[in-house]
Amino acid sequence: MPSASAGSASASSAPPSPVPALVERLSRGDRAAASRLMTVVENRQVGYREALRLTAPLTGRAHVLGVTGPPGAGKSTLVSALIKHYRGEGKTVGVIAVDPTSAISGGALLGDRIRMLSFYQDPGVFVRSMASRGRLGGLAAATADVVRIMDAFGRDVIIIETVGVGQDEISIAGLADTTLLVEVPGMGDDVQALKAGVLEIADVLVINKADREGADRLANHIKTTMRLLPQAEEAWSPPIVKTVAHEAQGIAELAAAVEKHRAYLQERGRLQTDRRERLRAEVLERARDLMLRRLMQDIEQNGKLDGVLDDLLAHRTDPATAAHALVDGPRPE
Amino acid sequence: MPSASAGSASASSAPPSPVPALVERLSRGDRAAASRLMTVVENRQVGYREALRLTAPLTGRAHVLGVTGPPGAGKSTLVSALIKHYRGEGKTVGVIAVDPTSAISGGALLGDRIRMLSFYQDPGVFVRSMASRGRLGGLAAATADVVRIMDAFGRDVIIIETVGVGQDEISIAGLADTTLLVEVPGMGDDVQALKAGVLEIADVLVINKADREGADRLANHIKTTMRLLPQAEEAWSPPIVKTVAHEAQGIAELAAAVEKHRAYLQERGRLQTDRRERLRAEVLERARDLMLRRLMQDIEQNGKLDGVLDDLLAHRTDPATAAHALVDGPRPE
Repeated sequence: MPSASAGSASASSAPPSPVPALVERLSRGDRAAASRLMTVVENRQVGYREALRLTAPLTGRAHVLGVTGPPGAGKSTLVSALIKHYRGEGKTVGVIAVDPTSAISGGALLGDRIRMLSFYQDPGVFVRSMASRGRLGGLAAATADVVRIMDAFGRDVIIIETVGVGQDEISIAGLADTTLLVEVPGMGDDVQALKAGVLEIADVLVINKADREGADRLANHIKTTMRLLPQAEEAWSPPIVKTVAHEAQGIAELAAAVEKHRAYLQERGRLQTDRRERLRAEVLERARDLMLRRLMQDIEQNGKLDGVLDDLLAHRTDPATAAHALVDGPRPE
Repeated sequence: MPSASAGSASASSAPPSPVPALVERLSRGDRAAASRLMTVVENRQVGYREALRLTAPLTGRAHVLGVTGPPGAGKSTLVSALIKHYRGEGKTVGVIAVDPTSAISGGALLGDRIRMLSFYQDPGVFVRSMASRGRLGGLAAATADVVRIMDAFGRDVIIIETVGVGQDEISIAGLADTTLLVEVPGMGDDVQALKAGVLEIADVLVINKADREGADRLANHIKTTMRLLPQAEEAWSPPIVKTVAHEAQGIAELAAAVEKHRAYLQERGRLQTDRRERLRAEVLERARDLMLRRLMQDIEQNGKLDGVLDDLLAHRTDPATAAHALVDGPRPE
């Protein structure tokens, strides 16, 4: 009995996993179960791989929107307006608000996000906040997994809202099928935004607060800059949509531009090739993390690193040779 | 003959490595050989591991100084003044000028560095520039290896000069035994510099251009901020040294502060523990890179990734399980 099937033996000695029941409840539309599974995958708690594995067959239906842009561009207001629009079309919506710098700018964001509370009574809207940096495996990986649970939960549209234009945000925007870059006139940071390479990730450009002075100038500036970007034959040409989000102006046009991009992706088979490309990067990143964790565990157990460091300090070896020795074990030369 | 010793068979079919002869020449003080070996390790050319292995026994004598700080702080002038000072004491000096952003700011730096040309006739001074981002294995790793060759070449003092306060610079400063952080009054960026966490890496704080207004205010500001940093019992308390580098003012005091820090490290056995800590981080980083390269080669050869991506797109698996499959091969569950 004990050694016949080590796998099930060790499984039966552990408490039964709550994950299968949670996934079953999620598939029946249970909000609390979905929320719980998101926490499991976001924090890489016990059972997170099981959660991803069991929900995988339920995923792939949602259209994922990324909304990014500098602080103060009115992204949260825009997202609220989009939620209303999609709800009016009878679509269910999931929102993942990601803030890699929440420790610093938490206050202002909180204010913006409180507006989303108005949707908390609507079962067709699911809002989830993610914060804190330095999490295991990176914020982008955690966000990708939360998107998956949201997708398995059956949301028609999933909106990932990120703040800023840093590398984290670009990685997170990379999780979306369609990325909206939100700019506002008169912030004087148009040049900086373009410099950071964010224009290249935009599928739809939104000039929000377009009733302000300088909206046309900003639009022209963006058009000029985009002409400088390398363009593939028959590539998608990102439209520029002007909105005044707090008055719901331009939101229908924005949703139409998003829909057009989705149709473009589908017609060209791009939806699948884009997702394949993103999955490729993600799987390789995860494989690398996995190898590193294994290496660290291995090293902590066998104490080999101490001997290697002794050799290095005594100048009997060099770091490149030492790294090979750690990975392969010592080899005769 | 062919299969008896595969290692030497493949070695004899390749042209003989020039590295052993170069190392022999370097050990006799041949500047051209040292320069050539630096190029080999900097660019990870064929033979770079051999170069590191053969020079390892010659290393460990130099005291390595890191000099960092914002652009315009006068670092190059300060380094020139330090070179003169050390040459006056009969010490040999190596300088490694690192500029991760050279593509952008190349012009200004070039001007600064031309001053160092005045040392080109002095065999006791060896200046080496490093630039360009995105190199294989990272700029910090390449810099660490160039430092090793410089060390093997017998320099008494090696100065690593970096521009700016970004993550690259902090990594590179981490290569030094003693790190000098150079600030100047009236640049209004004191707060920013402190925010970036650079104060924590400083062993000696230099207020250069101290004849300018605001030098005392900056010194007080730094002192106040440093009191907020966590301090271990009997820890080194970084002194603040005022200099006017272009007039060689304060340079003897600065060299004395550096010497005091070196003595502190040596007395406490910290020199070895610090180096051990740095080597630990470096070896683990290299081991991770090595594993990643292996994984990529493996994947390119076996085509396993394509099958995994097919499964992912069909929602038959999830990225976490897929990553495990890539690293371990598929396992029965």
